[in-house]
Amino acid sequence: MLGGTAVHFSLAASFFTEVRPVGPVGEDFGAAEFEVLESRGVLTDDVERVEGGQSFFWRGRYEYDLNIAHTEDTQLNVFGEFEPKLSAASRAADTLFLANIQPDLQRQVRSQCVEARFSALDSMNLWIDTARDSLLAAIGEVECVIVNDAEIRQLTGELNLARAARAVMERGPRAVVAKQGEYGAALFTEEGFFALPGFPLEDVRDPTGAGDSFAGGFLGYLDSHDGDLDEASLRRAMGYGTVLASFNVEEFGTERVSRLSREEIDERFEALRGMTQFEPLPAA
Amino acid sequence: MLGGTAVHFSLAASFFTEVRPVGPVGEDFGAAEFEVLESRGVLTDDVERVEGGQSFFWRGRYEYDLNIAHTEDTQLNVFGEFEPKLSAASRAADTLFLANIQPDLQRQVRSQCVEARFSALDSMNLWIDTARDSLLAAIGEVECVIVNDAEIRQLTGELNLARAARAVMERGPRAVVAKQGEYGAALFTEEGFFALPGFPLEDVRDPTGAGDSFAGGFLGYLDSHDGDLDEASLRRAMGYGTVLASFNVEEFGTERVSRLSREEIDERFEALRGMTQFEPLPAA
Repeated sequence: MLGGTAVHFSLAASFFTEVRPVGPVGEDFGAAEFEVLESRGVLTDDVERVEGGQSFFWRGRYEYDLNIAHTEDTQLNVFGEFEPKLSAASRAADTLFLANIQPDLQRQVRSQCVEARFSALDSMNLWIDTARDSLLAAIGEVECVIVNDAEIRQLTGELNLARAARAVMERGPRAVVAKQGEYGAALFTEEGFFALPGFPLEDVRDPTGAGDSFAGGFLGYLDSHDGDLDEASLRRAMGYGTVLASFNVEEFGTERVSRLSREEIDERFEALRGMTQFEPLPAA
Repeated sequence: MLGGTAVHFSLAASFFTEVRPVGPVGEDFGAAEFEVLESRGVLTDDVERVEGGQSFFWRGRYEYDLNIAHTEDTQLNVFGEFEPKLSAASRAADTLFLANIQPDLQRQVRSQCVEARFSALDSMNLWIDTARDSLLAAIGEVECVIVNDAEIRQLTGELNLARAARAVMERGPRAVVAKQGEYGAALFTEEGFFALPGFPLEDVRDPTGAGDSFAGGFLGYLDSHDGDLDEASLRRAMGYGTVLASFNVEEFGTERVSRLSREEIDERFEALRGMTQFEPLPAA
């Protein structure tokens, strides 16, 4: 079924701002797939449809631990030959998300978006192992890194997450978001530490795309925010990321997010706030 | 070195209230060990010193993942023949913690403390496997269960933590605390869900006893609280549990907690509050 980082990210971000995904699809990506994006106002001008090609394909399964996806099949297809081509509108983006791909391609895109006030990247163990220097260079060129906590440890060789996050920030980014599956996500900045639990759900159907939905909510909110991207804004962005991820996992693929409303999002955002607040002691 | 649930729990709770551990020690538990407890005001009248006996002993190691203790040696020693004997003062306790032990012994102690307004129990996979019915009966007699999240899943057969916690509450307790190692802890009550991350530390020396220190901070605070044990109190108790656990892991054994001050605790409590709060959106 329809999925992939660009799709999950774009749908999540679409509740906050104009989104322009850049990437290739095959001939199997037809009117129905475009309609899922366009009905949410996602601008698909930079989605490149490759004649005779097949879209990237992934199949996996989850067992007891929904935090661990067991890959059964990955076909790069059109993604294997992908060379990002950005329209003028995409190059003018205020906010940029460099999804998980070979880090030299991330750098090539980053260098084209000279007006971006906030850029973030995701990555994975494959690039940490095979393109470490490129990845470190890419990290030096973004404001924020959004990866799983195990990847932050692997990247830095630091088992302690707080130290590992600091080591990443020493390379340039002002913020590190550690995604922690059902345990939520943690934000490290120079100002300090912030963490949110995953929104508690009694029915989790499909964790696929949760991290991408998180990134979409996080960056979508930041793009919509007119003021400074200060600590308070980043914390609210963590809240929206958490909320979008939680809706995403309630049903399969894009089912839940594609019929979501901003009202439902804001309601859950407030519920999440209620689940994380505690009062100081009454004055003695 | 000195350790064990009763020691870690008692030291943590001693910052909030009068604590009376009940349990057996051997002749190896001497003046120096009693002094660690008594210098914190812990009342040791119900610590039973068994002539010719050796104290319970555990040795383990931690690898990459500090959440997982690898046991190398366990010697029950005097603990193997333990029959809890409570003094009149212990039987009159307002707050009761039934540490991890055979659940029939937990029930025997619970039944003697008729005045307890709040009682909690810990347990482990051994009793879930070998004394399940007794454990379920014990759970039906306490206000709160404080266990690791994997144990809640194992106990209930529910992989989803929110469902598993609800299944526990359906047996009687009004609160379930799921300990989650470095990810913190979650509180389930009828009123809702609350979660706190572990306090971020760049140096974690020894996770042994973190869960017991958590329980000590949690129940110690509740015992010191004069008002209703409402949701707000339980949340503050989660905060104190988290803070005591974080101090405990900074050094080996009881080193850090035995020279801690209430001022340091309250300062970290406020810091933790600052790490978990986020603001609603400004009114449109």
